[in-house]
Amino acid sequence: MHRGERLGTSRGTTAGNISAMLLVRRVHSLTRLGPLNTQRLQVAPAAASSAVRLWSSSRDDQRSYQRGHSPSWRNALAGLLAGAGAVLAYGLHHHKAERADTIRVQTTEKSSSLPTFSQEEVTKHRSLDDGVWVTYRGGVYDITEFVAMHPGGDKIMLAAGGALEPFWALYAVHNEKHVLDILSEYKVGELSADDLKKQQTVESSDPYALDPKRHPMLHTNSLKPFNAEPPPEILTDSYITPSAFFFKRNHLPVPQVDPASYQLVVEGLPGGVLKLSLEELKTKFPKHTVTATLQCAGNRRSEMNKVKQVKGLNWGLAAIGNATWSGAKLRDVLLAAGYGSDVAQWARHVQFEGLDKDVMGTAYGASIPVNKAVSEEGDVLLAYEMNGEELPADHGFPVRVVVPGTVGARNVKWLRKIIVSTDESSSHWQQNDYKGFSPGIDWDTVDYRSAPAIQELPIQSAITTPSDGAVVYRSAKEVTVKGYAWSGGGREVVRVDVSLDGGKTWQVAQLRGNEKGQGPEFSPPPGRAWAWKLWEVSAPLPPEVQELEIVCKAVDNSYNMQPDTISPIWNLRGVLSNAWHRVKVNIREDAVEE
Amino acid sequence: MHRGERLGTSRGTTAGNISAMLLVRRVHSLTRLGPLNTQRLQVAPAAASSAVRLWSSSRDDQRSYQRGHSPSWRNALAGLLAGAGAVLAYGLHHHKAERADTIRVQTTEKSSSLPTFSQEEVTKHRSLDDGVWVTYRGGVYDITEFVAMHPGGDKIMLAAGGALEPFWALYAVHNEKHVLDILSEYKVGELSADDLKKQQTVESSDPYALDPKRHPMLHTNSLKPFNAEPPPEILTDSYITPSAFFFKRNHLPVPQVDPASYQLVVEGLPGGVLKLSLEELKTKFPKHTVTATLQCAGNRRSEMNKVKQVKGLNWGLAAIGNATWSGAKLRDVLLAAGYGSDVAQWARHVQFEGLDKDVMGTAYGASIPVNKAVSEEGDVLLAYEMNGEELPADHGFPVRVVVPGTVGARNVKWLRKIIVSTDESSSHWQQNDYKGFSPGIDWDTVDYRSAPAIQELPIQSAITTPSDGAVVYRSAKEVTVKGYAWSGGGREVVRVDVSLDGGKTWQVAQLRGNEKGQGPEFSPPPGRAWAWKLWEVSAPLPPEVQELEIVCKAVDNSYNMQPDTISPIWNLRGVLSNAWHRVKVNIREDAVEE
Repeated sequence: MHRGERLGTSRGTTAGNISAMLLVRRVHSLTRLGPLNTQRLQVAPAAASSAVRLWSSSRDDQRSYQRGHSPSWRNALAGLLAGAGAVLAYGLHHHKAERADTIRVQTTEKSSSLPTFSQEEVTKHRSLDDGVWVTYRGGVYDITEFVAMHPGGDKIMLAAGGALEPFWALYAVHNEKHVLDILSEYKVGELSADDLKKQQTVESSDPYALDPKRHPMLHTNSLKPFNAEPPPEILTDSYITPSAFFFKRNHLPVPQVDPASYQLVVEGLPGGVLKLSLEELKTKFPKHTVTATLQCAGNRRSEMNKVKQVKGLNWGLAAIGNATWSGAKLRDVLLAAGYGSDVAQWARHVQFEGLDKDVMGTAYGASIPVNKAVSEEGDVLLAYEMNGEELPADHGFPVRVVVPGTVGARNVKWLRKIIVSTDESSSHWQQNDYKGFSPGIDWDTVDYRSAPAIQELPIQSAITTPSDGAVVYRSAKEVTVKGYAWSGGGREVVRVDVSLDGGKTWQVAQLRGNEKGQGPEFSPPPGRAWAWKLWEVSAPLPPEVQELEIVCKAVDNSYNMQPDTISPIWNLRGVLSNAWHRVKVNIREDAVEE
Repeated sequence: MHRGERLGTSRGTTAGNISAMLLVRRVHSLTRLGPLNTQRLQVAPAAASSAVRLWSSSRDDQRSYQRGHSPSWRNALAGLLAGAGAVLAYGLHHHKAERADTIRVQTTEKSSSLPTFSQEEVTKHRSLDDGVWVTYRGGVYDITEFVAMHPGGDKIMLAAGGALEPFWALYAVHNEKHVLDILSEYKVGELSADDLKKQQTVESSDPYALDPKRHPMLHTNSLKPFNAEPPPEILTDSYITPSAFFFKRNHLPVPQVDPASYQLVVEGLPGGVLKLSLEELKTKFPKHTVTATLQCAGNRRSEMNKVKQVKGLNWGLAAIGNATWSGAKLRDVLLAAGYGSDVAQWARHVQFEGLDKDVMGTAYGASIPVNKAVSEEGDVLLAYEMNGEELPADHGFPVRVVVPGTVGARNVKWLRKIIVSTDESSSHWQQNDYKGFSPGIDWDTVDYRSAPAIQELPIQSAITTPSDGAVVYRSAKEVTVKGYAWSGGGREVVRVDVSLDGGKTWQVAQLRGNEKGQGPEFSPPPGRAWAWKLWEVSAPLPPEVQELEIVCKAVDNSYNMQPDTISPIWNLRGVLSNAWHRVKVNIREDAVEE
């Protein structure tokens, strides 16, 4: 059974009528056939935050859990809620139009004939044994059987016995008609008028209300949390990406931080806990500046989506940017906090926690290998400046980690805590998300432990101009192609090949490796090429050709190359999309004017 | 003009009659049209060894030289003689049969009517101005006009005014009829009987006579120098490749080294020259053991040759092996020799020279970046043991460099000298050979300086069994596929995908990361995964299919992937051949026996 896959491939086929709703119903029915794995889900609200931890703290438990009842649906959508709000909307959205006509009957409100419950009664239903009830806008819903199907996994239990509104405010994905449709199925009653009034008086405000203003030119992939990228051609306008146009990838609301009271905490070292104010971080440690490219693991995911639907924000090719970052070296801070050869014996990872938190207070978290963190040549910064100015709110004010050569997800923003440890971060984003799997792996068969957390990224390049579908006039005589190229792990891009004929013949592009000059004379130290190269090639328009298929592929100094096509690197999360980039351009004959 | 290319593509077409000889004649004619670049070629025998140095000591000179007269032919074959003896033989050999009939007239001896010259007269002709004469088996040849066409480049000038025999003994490629055919064109006379007798008394012996015995199972790509690989299925028989089956890649004769008088020289450090006996190397420094895979840059070159002819030994897929190496850490020796923070300010490369030398005493040489050489985590060894025994003669007895994660060519054997320097090795093998170029670059357009010397190698994998064209019987019900996977730079192989249908669908192979166990529980420290993984997958034979196209592709922990196809990574030297490996297998229905 490949249910998760079918969900994706049904788009645009005659099987398209197998809507998300029917799929939910089917899995729903399946769950009736076997005993529910109730033990893990008997979580009272008071213990809810430990329930969240259960999800990732014990790998063995987690695995057997995933292999328990109805794993496909659970795995298919597990963890999406946490920090990938737009995902579900995307994944289900394309079924909505079809469903609207065929199953409208299911959305009929059943309110009039239903009993009224007090909040006290609702609160008793917060486990699978007792039933899982929630309230929403005065309605009471028994979602016990939906728990196993919840795209966001266990997190739904956080709302058990209470109101959905505070959670849905955080994860705006729920504000969709089809989500209300699903909910309406489970309605069992009305909340008493008194209790509804009480709820409304403590109604939570929009946690995103204080998010900063953004540049209107950005293309928004998700508003809450905010995820956006610039128009691709902006990227090759300047070697350093202006902060306003640098892609934004937030998992949660932007935390409001008072720089005067900010404290950075360093834990896990023999000297005990070290706390540093922003001022101390800036004055007690030398300031280093590194030009480094950051790229989201999901950059170019939209191309994977064209092959087969994946789960994740539908990034174009501009979830990448190049900036100068200034701050203290993580190495210096760790040494000051007591890191030494004793610690090196046992320490394996350095974990980071952000100030950005979900409803239950779980912070965004990630980790990097300790050798990268402490290496003199690793250049890991606790950055407080971006492009010569104070870090912008969207990029981690007042302090973020910059891990050059490493996937964006480990460059934790709004940094609160650094923990030297024997273990990787136990966060969802380290353990389950941001990993790459074989194209043959689907949500039925995925074993998160089988793949390493993404750290260094592979060789990447893309064409920023012309754009796909652009028109070039014959009178222009030539076409100029521009783009970016970058590789993870400090591996320098040494060549970009460009083809105008879909990959049959190739020419070598000119590289630009800094603000001004061309490539060859600028070469960073081996293993420390953290910044991208911009590239450009101008070529005559081939005569008697109506369409160009422009392709680029880059090579780094380990001679890694990009794969030719996307299908063989397709993966269920849509990360690591680095096949050759292709755009088609039409050549138009000029109107004859005399 | 793409003459070098045409030489390759003519194979197997009706244009096959454009034989190598005709090509030589054509280029020959072209050389008459312009002035020869005589300045650089006015090299007296006494200065011959500096002429060799000229080839690589000045990059600017070299480039303008290459851009001088008839560059295509010169560049096409430049440097091949030096250490790649079988190349020319391969490049020209397939034309021989065709030529034999059509141009036999050219091979007619012209001896009877020609004058007799003394050795003294011959010796006067050793520059392009005075003419370049050589003798061979009593004949005198004026090869002035051939100099610019010599596949081995300038090295031909070493023989100017003298006998060819000692040189041809070193580079056995010349012992081919078509080479004699070319030579015969230039015959101008006979050597006097007295001088011929003198020559014969000092006739050089075969410099390869003392090469060690090799295992008869090896497939020989070149006998002198010796280059051979094992049958592929041997590789997956054991995690550690037995030394006898480990691929041999020699550029020159195997030097005979007396371990008692052996001295390793370390130069370029403030403390002066350090000399170490073998005993001192073994006793003064801790002995470290590293399991590391070595791979030739040309591994799988034969697959590139099928796309379009390249220059180089026609390696199959077994120019790779995995061994345990024991010795002193290069880091420890450099520290003992005076390496410190002062040196770190200016040192950029560590050069190595072997005891294997060409006729003029030029040693094999290569270099690696200094940060790799001195890094605690770089694990670079001065190895004196392979697989627990003294280094075999073919693998560098008594001492070789082992640079884990780095292309074989930098793992200098029969190590004589270590030089800490600001510069890369100036050797041909560092500056011109062992570099990767765009598929659009040919011998007319190549600029050696445009590409970095290969150091770390990209992700690689191949299928060792079944072999291409193998037969599987339907009654076997399933097929078992085995292979190896490895990546350079200490990047761990984390997954191998295998397809039975040419890449449409994929399954994940089981990895084996050490002598006994399977993958997951064995994980080397980050960045220090020096050894390959063997892999295996068994899959049911798909019904109603007559042929399987089995494909493998590997992924390393930087999520680098192999490119899909060979054409887009084709390069004129045929290095870095790491596209998906494909084998076709026929499924045969069993005979019905009752």
